[in-house]
Amino acid sequence: MNTSKQIVTPKEFLFAVEEDDKLPLDCGRTLRNVTLKYETYGQLDKDKRNAILILHALSGDAHVCGYHSPSDDKPGWWNEMVGPGKPIDTNKYFVICSNVIGGCSGSTGPRSINPETGKPYNLDFPVLTIADMVRAQQRLIEYLEIPELLAVVGGSMGGMQALQWSISYPEMVHSVAAIATTAQLSPQSIAFDWIGRSAIQYDHEFVNGNYDDEFPPEHGLSIARMLAHVTYLSDESMAKKFGRGLQNSNSYTYKFDRDFAVESYLRYQGQRFVERFDANSYLYITKAMDYFDLSALGNGSLTQAFAGARANYLVVSFTSDWLFTTKQSEEIVRALLNNSLEVSFCEIESSYGHDAFLLEIETLGRIVSDFLRNQLMEWRKDECK
Amino acid sequence: MNTSKQIVTPKEFLFAVEEDDKLPLDCGRTLRNVTLKYETYGQLDKDKRNAILILHALSGDAHVCGYHSPSDDKPGWWNEMVGPGKPIDTNKYFVICSNVIGGCSGSTGPRSINPETGKPYNLDFPVLTIADMVRAQQRLIEYLEIPELLAVVGGSMGGMQALQWSISYPEMVHSVAAIATTAQLSPQSIAFDWIGRSAIQYDHEFVNGNYDDEFPPEHGLSIARMLAHVTYLSDESMAKKFGRGLQNSNSYTYKFDRDFAVESYLRYQGQRFVERFDANSYLYITKAMDYFDLSALGNGSLTQAFAGARANYLVVSFTSDWLFTTKQSEEIVRALLNNSLEVSFCEIESSYGHDAFLLEIETLGRIVSDFLRNQLMEWRKDECK
Repeated sequence: MNTSKQIVTPKEFLFAVEEDDKLPLDCGRTLRNVTLKYETYGQLDKDKRNAILILHALSGDAHVCGYHSPSDDKPGWWNEMVGPGKPIDTNKYFVICSNVIGGCSGSTGPRSINPETGKPYNLDFPVLTIADMVRAQQRLIEYLEIPELLAVVGGSMGGMQALQWSISYPEMVHSVAAIATTAQLSPQSIAFDWIGRSAIQYDHEFVNGNYDDEFPPEHGLSIARMLAHVTYLSDESMAKKFGRGLQNSNSYTYKFDRDFAVESYLRYQGQRFVERFDANSYLYITKAMDYFDLSALGNGSLTQAFAGARANYLVVSFTSDWLFTTKQSEEIVRALLNNSLEVSFCEIESSYGHDAFLLEIETLGRIVSDFLRNQLMEWRKDECK
Repeated sequence: MNTSKQIVTPKEFLFAVEEDDKLPLDCGRTLRNVTLKYETYGQLDKDKRNAILILHALSGDAHVCGYHSPSDDKPGWWNEMVGPGKPIDTNKYFVICSNVIGGCSGSTGPRSINPETGKPYNLDFPVLTIADMVRAQQRLIEYLEIPELLAVVGGSMGGMQALQWSISYPEMVHSVAAIATTAQLSPQSIAFDWIGRSAIQYDHEFVNGNYDDEFPPEHGLSIARMLAHVTYLSDESMAKKFGRGLQNSNSYTYKFDRDFAVESYLRYQGQRFVERFDANSYLYITKAMDYFDLSALGNGSLTQAFAGARANYLVVSFTSDWLFTTKQSEEIVRALLNNSLEVSFCEIESSYGHDAFLLEIETLGRIVSDFLRNQLMEWRKDECK
């Protein structure tokens, strides 16, 4: 047993319990009895200026780093990035990682019990937006009595939430690190999400979302995951990793099972995913991403959308990311600069595609760590003036 | 009724009828009673030097141009490119368009009757290669008593067949126009094909390929088609065509049906496709494309693969084609030049993605037309010497 492991205990925040305290949603409906799963690391300073909120991507969860027990051998999803002595140093910062509502990792989502009916919501669960996810997280930060976060940090869908935070709650966000993200999905990304959701909805076991826990729509969900997975890689990284290598032999099988290593890899990824992710949640979360469009908040102008924002920003993209491209990051940067906001922008050279935000930790870590240190230093300096 | 319509009658060529005449295949098996659907346009000159073989892409067929009857209002798939006075001028050239075996457009394929059992082959049909398709076409050209084709022309999978023709039957191919094609699929393309095939094979109605004609695996096939369709477009063309436009209203539906125009478009494309294409054929043809790897014919060297070729080549790529990229075309060009073969290479500026070979007819037509005229002129000049 490795005693040097950083052990963390997941927490749950239950809110919107009272009738007059329900969580309002963009669709016009409300949610009651909302649970948000979260984890915290490190200590909040007396001045409460060292709190960092980390937000996760589509299939992530509140477990950003460390282990859940001494025997746990699977660390959190950004363990190289966050922890004692890591780029987001939990010896220095109080780190909160919050799950999203709509998911399947401990927070209220479509498979939760609807308090009105006593049965799972399934497709009766309201269709959420990224702003709804952030609205729930704001309740958590309020509950933790943190008036202003040093930084809100996220990659991919986490970056969308981080940007949304700075617009929804400008007074609570000192800075934002938005990594491998976008202010709106391209039609190509919407198309891929649509195909993935269609595969789930077409699955014979889907039963309009009312599937049995024992018989989830595994095939549809694995199709959706395999497709999404290809968009997380790059043509270059796939060429390096698999090429046209064959799985089991030096010759073609002349059958319809797997021939190529890349086919085997994808099938494995699809199969693993269905063990840990819920099909209904997949529908809800991808739909929230498709709906996300910051420029709509500014009546079509992204610049206008950030008019009320006051945070300092770090925007990071990766050269081979074709899901959320450098061009999309640059649009964010332009809108921020148009509002005379402080922005650092960095495009990191990488062949890993969208997944680079999880893999290029050496470069990304240095950039994020510097950004956070400067934010904290300047903020405390301002205070002394 | 428009009497100026060019009317064409599809033809069928039945071969490999005798036991000792069976069509050998790369997988080691053979095919008997093979039908190849084809169409011809124009007249073969006395010197038999004006014959052009056109080969189609995945979902194409033998009907390259013209109409099947005076009341027919749907012309062939390359009608702007081929016909009287068109870039591939049927007043001048004798044009043959041959279907592929393995498909579902009139030639022998997985839904054909297996002469050994009297029942449809379905997944007992042998897994084919592009070289097998070409092997069948060679029988057709032999039957038509054409000793050498002026040109073999094809886009996408048709380009693969054209390249293969020049390697399999060098003495029968005077020139090749290989458009928007590749000498081998990238792992990313193999991945997309795998996901599409998986969607078909996972479909409840698939029944291991033994589906009823009345109940084909429509859902799986439409998923495969929608996915493939995205790879035929470009991010840019999708942005131009759809953007983030909504389908029916100015606001989100907060439901899981179509919100975005691109979703509606894709669903429509998927639905139309299942009406005209067979799921088993989709498996066979995509597998043939995945298996296609000319460099394997040269023991890993594409240059070596073309060592026996003697044709003149035109290679055309399109800037926004991310399925079969300019880089992949350049690899072909390099291999041809290494063999001191005559090559013209052209990258056409286009935002249409892979579909550009069907859409950029003005530019492509001029290039192909010039190439063919030069080939014919030089060939006849050689003869006069």
